[in-house]
Amino acid sequence: MSVIDNVLKANELYSESYTNNNLPAPPALKLAVITCKDARMMVEAILGLKEGDAHIIRNAGGVVTPDVIRSLLVSHYMLGAQEVMIINHTGCGMMSFTDEQLFTTVRQASGTAAAGPEAIHTFTDIEENVRRQVEKVKSHPWIPKNLVVRGFVYDMETGKLREVV
Amino acid sequence: MSVIDNVLKANELYSESYTNNNLPAPPALKLAVITCKDARMMVEAILGLKEGDAHIIRNAGGVVTPDVIRSLLVSHYMLGAQEVMIINHTGCGMMSFTDEQLFTTVRQASGTAAAGPEAIHTFTDIEENVRRQVEKVKSHPWIPKNLVVRGFVYDMETGKLREVV
Repeated sequence: MSVIDNVLKANELYSESYTNNNLPAPPALKLAVITCKDARMMVEAILGLKEGDAHIIRNAGGVVTPDVIRSLLVSHYMLGAQEVMIINHTGCGMMSFTDEQLFTTVRQASGTAAAGPEAIHTFTDIEENVRRQVEKVKSHPWIPKNLVVRGFVYDMETGKLREVV
Repeated sequence: MSVIDNVLKANELYSESYTNNNLPAPPALKLAVITCKDARMMVEAILGLKEGDAHIIRNAGGVVTPDVIRSLLVSHYMLGAQEVMIINHTGCGMMSFTDEQLFTTVRQASGTAAAGPEAIHTFTDIEENVRRQVEKVKSHPWIPKNLVVRGFVYDMETGKLREVV
């Protein structure tokens, strides 16, 4: 049995007590959050966000890729987001291996040499990584200069955010 | 005052009652979820997921881009995910404009013609879009054939998932 079938049963229960609040699409706080896909991060709880408050963009590491820029363009130009939080976290899996280790594993398992993506964006220095992600957003020619972009480390030991830049 | 300052106050409160459960990085359900960044989707609640259960990958639309493939490679090869849910939702902002409309807006606002990304991945037919995203994962040469990939529409009227493929 697929674990997804259990998730669907949980969704059945959720839907039984679900109320459609007819919230609008633009995020109420005009906020977009970029962070990691890590299973241990309950992002809305960590940030005290309610339904409708903020866009939550998540990928491996919480890194700013062209796809994140795409999401931000939609958030800002179409849905009014004015502030961006970039959050990396302690204990991130992306600090436990290198790009080359993953590429080697994937090539061996798939038997296919090059198929993309070109980089995995693993990192070693979390603060430097946060600074680099903030810089990638701020320096993008399609991101307006007045967009507020702030970078944080989330500490899994304490549940606390620490501002880096 | 930045709205982010309010979020930081909320995080202070969160951290005061936070308990570090020392969960491992691999998701307990061996599950990765790909869905939209929409502010109205409380993904963990909708799916009945607890801390540590599943990777949550989110972007504009819940579309499978090279960055999502990157995240999936990490989820599967490094952290043991065996199943993938792709969830698009009714009322998605990505059905309310076209790629060209966003590009025109961005070019006018920024004064810069081409800076990437090359596509915004807006869509009109949600079921077809889900099928296309599932196909993009399944057909990727670096994704193993035995990875379970299932596609869903989340109905914001009812809080319910409906399987498409």
